[in-house]
Amino acid sequence: MDRLNIGLIGYGVVGQGVVKAIKSRRKFLREKYETDFFIKTIADRSIAKKTPPGLENTLLTTDVNLILNDPDIHVVVELIGGLSPAKEIVLGALRAHKHVVTANKALIAECGLELFKEADANGCSILFESSVGAGIPIIRTITEGMAGNKFNGVYGIINGTCNYILTAMSKNKLTFAQALKEAQEKGYAESNPTLDISGMDAAYKLAILVFITMGKFVNVKDIYVEGINHISHDDIEFAQSLNLSICLLAIAKKIGNKLDVRVHPTMIPNEHGLATVNGVDNAIFLDSDPLGDVYIEGHGAGQMTAAMGVVADLINLGIRVDAPACIWAFNPADEVENLSLRKIEEVETRFYIRFMVIDKPGVLASITTVLGQHNISIASVSQKQENKGLTVPVVILTHQANEDQVKKALEEIAGLAVVKGKPVAIRMEKL
Amino acid sequence: MDRLNIGLIGYGVVGQGVVKAIKSRRKFLREKYETDFFIKTIADRSIAKKTPPGLENTLLTTDVNLILNDPDIHVVVELIGGLSPAKEIVLGALRAHKHVVTANKALIAECGLELFKEADANGCSILFESSVGAGIPIIRTITEGMAGNKFNGVYGIINGTCNYILTAMSKNKLTFAQALKEAQEKGYAESNPTLDISGMDAAYKLAILVFITMGKFVNVKDIYVEGINHISHDDIEFAQSLNLSICLLAIAKKIGNKLDVRVHPTMIPNEHGLATVNGVDNAIFLDSDPLGDVYIEGHGAGQMTAAMGVVADLINLGIRVDAPACIWAFNPADEVENLSLRKIEEVETRFYIRFMVIDKPGVLASITTVLGQHNISIASVSQKQENKGLTVPVVILTHQANEDQVKKALEEIAGLAVVKGKPVAIRMEKL
Repeated sequence: MDRLNIGLIGYGVVGQGVVKAIKSRRKFLREKYETDFFIKTIADRSIAKKTPPGLENTLLTTDVNLILNDPDIHVVVELIGGLSPAKEIVLGALRAHKHVVTANKALIAECGLELFKEADANGCSILFESSVGAGIPIIRTITEGMAGNKFNGVYGIINGTCNYILTAMSKNKLTFAQALKEAQEKGYAESNPTLDISGMDAAYKLAILVFITMGKFVNVKDIYVEGINHISHDDIEFAQSLNLSICLLAIAKKIGNKLDVRVHPTMIPNEHGLATVNGVDNAIFLDSDPLGDVYIEGHGAGQMTAAMGVVADLINLGIRVDAPACIWAFNPADEVENLSLRKIEEVETRFYIRFMVIDKPGVLASITTVLGQHNISIASVSQKQENKGLTVPVVILTHQANEDQVKKALEEIAGLAVVKGKPVAIRMEKL
Repeated sequence: MDRLNIGLIGYGVVGQGVVKAIKSRRKFLREKYETDFFIKTIADRSIAKKTPPGLENTLLTTDVNLILNDPDIHVVVELIGGLSPAKEIVLGALRAHKHVVTANKALIAECGLELFKEADANGCSILFESSVGAGIPIIRTITEGMAGNKFNGVYGIINGTCNYILTAMSKNKLTFAQALKEAQEKGYAESNPTLDISGMDAAYKLAILVFITMGKFVNVKDIYVEGINHISHDDIEFAQSLNLSICLLAIAKKIGNKLDVRVHPTMIPNEHGLATVNGVDNAIFLDSDPLGDVYIEGHGAGQMTAAMGVVADLINLGIRVDAPACIWAFNPADEVENLSLRKIEEVETRFYIRFMVIDKPGVLASITTVLGQHNISIASVSQKQENKGLTVPVVILTHQANEDQVKKALEEIAGLAVVKGKPVAIRMEKL
């Protein structure tokens, strides 16, 4: 279309990046995509405090209704994040027959199906490229580039903050606390980093990936999620000595009509591509049929990276806004697959387990006896330090073992008098 | 649309793959994309000899005009390859107001601009996802997923045959001839492998990537192309001892308003992602602004891989065929950039140079003197073997050096009495 009138809600880091991208290359965009991308209105609670340059023709307001009730606005860009009032705003926009572009992973993961149905009922679309992998075009790669394929799995590094911290712990020998502080100073972690380091941010993104690859909306609460705050230097060093790296992996696999969906720290071989993903980069493997594995990697964070996902959505919308049925390759309101989640207790992986034990004869026998009683087969045992009568780490690598059995065995072993503290178990995934 | 009527021209390996993909998942495709993909007619010179299963409702013919003149056919899939009669067929389809899907890299690289203009004049589109990287969705990633970005460069491994041969030479210690034979036996190389091993196949693909990233149609004849048939085991072993790998790299960089576009064997550090790309896999780096580097890797060859690029094109066409302006994010008939090719003589890279010399005192001095006279600065010299009075290899690594100067120096050095055979020079690219 000639001109796409945009209403932007939320003028934080990403919102300012979107404005910057569109303002700085408006001529390039107009000539290449034959559409004038015009930011008609910006609504933000604290807009009055800012004086954005180059926005003389843009209405600045604290009232979102000036966007939702404006019949000239074609698309609402929601960049405030969180569930409320984002959800009400998006529903309001759809009911006013406006398309929506959002970077809000929590909103799409928690309320996607409801929102897509509302969009469908109003002849509108919701685009959310920036919600996963920031500007890495993973959503469109799956929905359009790989159209026609079926997906057996998707896995990868999709939280830049955790990857930054684990990289800094591993490469620069920082402690978790030091690495987190560095990430915060560089703007790669929030002042309250819980959402990222708990693994929940990755879980939201994984839920979106599962939906667009396998057609199933999983309840985020049902995803097994484990964060990185219990990872210590000892574990990273043991991993390195085994030619392994630790990363926070988001994993979804289709096994029959069951979905195995989880987010947890994972040890992977150093030769694997994911082990070389540094800092805030994101990287995703798509296991597709018949195309096979497709791997995509890029910057997973940063103002302009996130902004460019929004801009790509606006361009794809701009060229198709007069023909809304052409915006999506498939209708995201359709849940097509008859799939259910597999419980974590049913999952089998190899495990790295570190116990802190009193260094004296017979300790290993008592630990391995418990493991054996739970059908956990041992691949290797190592106790590298000697410290007679005091505490030393013992590391055991298992063969494929059942989650439930491992959990029970670890509880039992933690109760042994010779074992100090909580054993650390990190899964070793076959990739 | 409800039903997309397809006319398929060329029923070879890829054509049969497309039929297999569409037949085997017709229900899945119909439900997911709300379009029935119907192969109405297949034309092939030798169609009578084959009895394709499941094609009872499809007209099989040797006459392409039964497709071009059929008003019910919406899209022509051209899979015969080469320039003629492919070009005449595609022009005929466009003039009959049919969309075109093609995997023909030579056709798009050589005649793309003319064909896109003809398509534009007839309100039709040409889609060509399979022409580069087979089914890896590189075209759509650039044109849609990364829409709004500018591109400073694109480089990667885009010829599976060469990568298979170089991997086999390096990992399995095969000679070039053995590796080529193995590739042919596995169906990864043609019985006449010239197009692949000469680098021309990669040059065609690179021309397409340059066009869709930078908006400039370069004449394929003007691309500097060097194949892999002069790479010897000695070079691969020397590279390994330097922690480097040799791959056939396709490179395009924008430097001001000049384009540096070339295809040649290149030594890259083993830690670089491209060094881990094995066998027939393809991998491409996109250097974009402001999104930064995006990397995409996947199988670059194989029947179903190539077929799925065609299927993705058909799906993207099927959902947008009623609104042709929505098919492309930008009009590929527009050459937007004012760019010209930089001559290879102007390029500067580091070089690995291997000379075969008589092992006697003073030889190194005479070689390095000539290099110095051509302003070529030396980073290291090594002569690992000793063989007094007989021939041994000497390897010199240079700092950044000008192509023209290197060429002239090598010609002069080749003329020295102590130097035997033609010196081998392999560029070392800063990635």
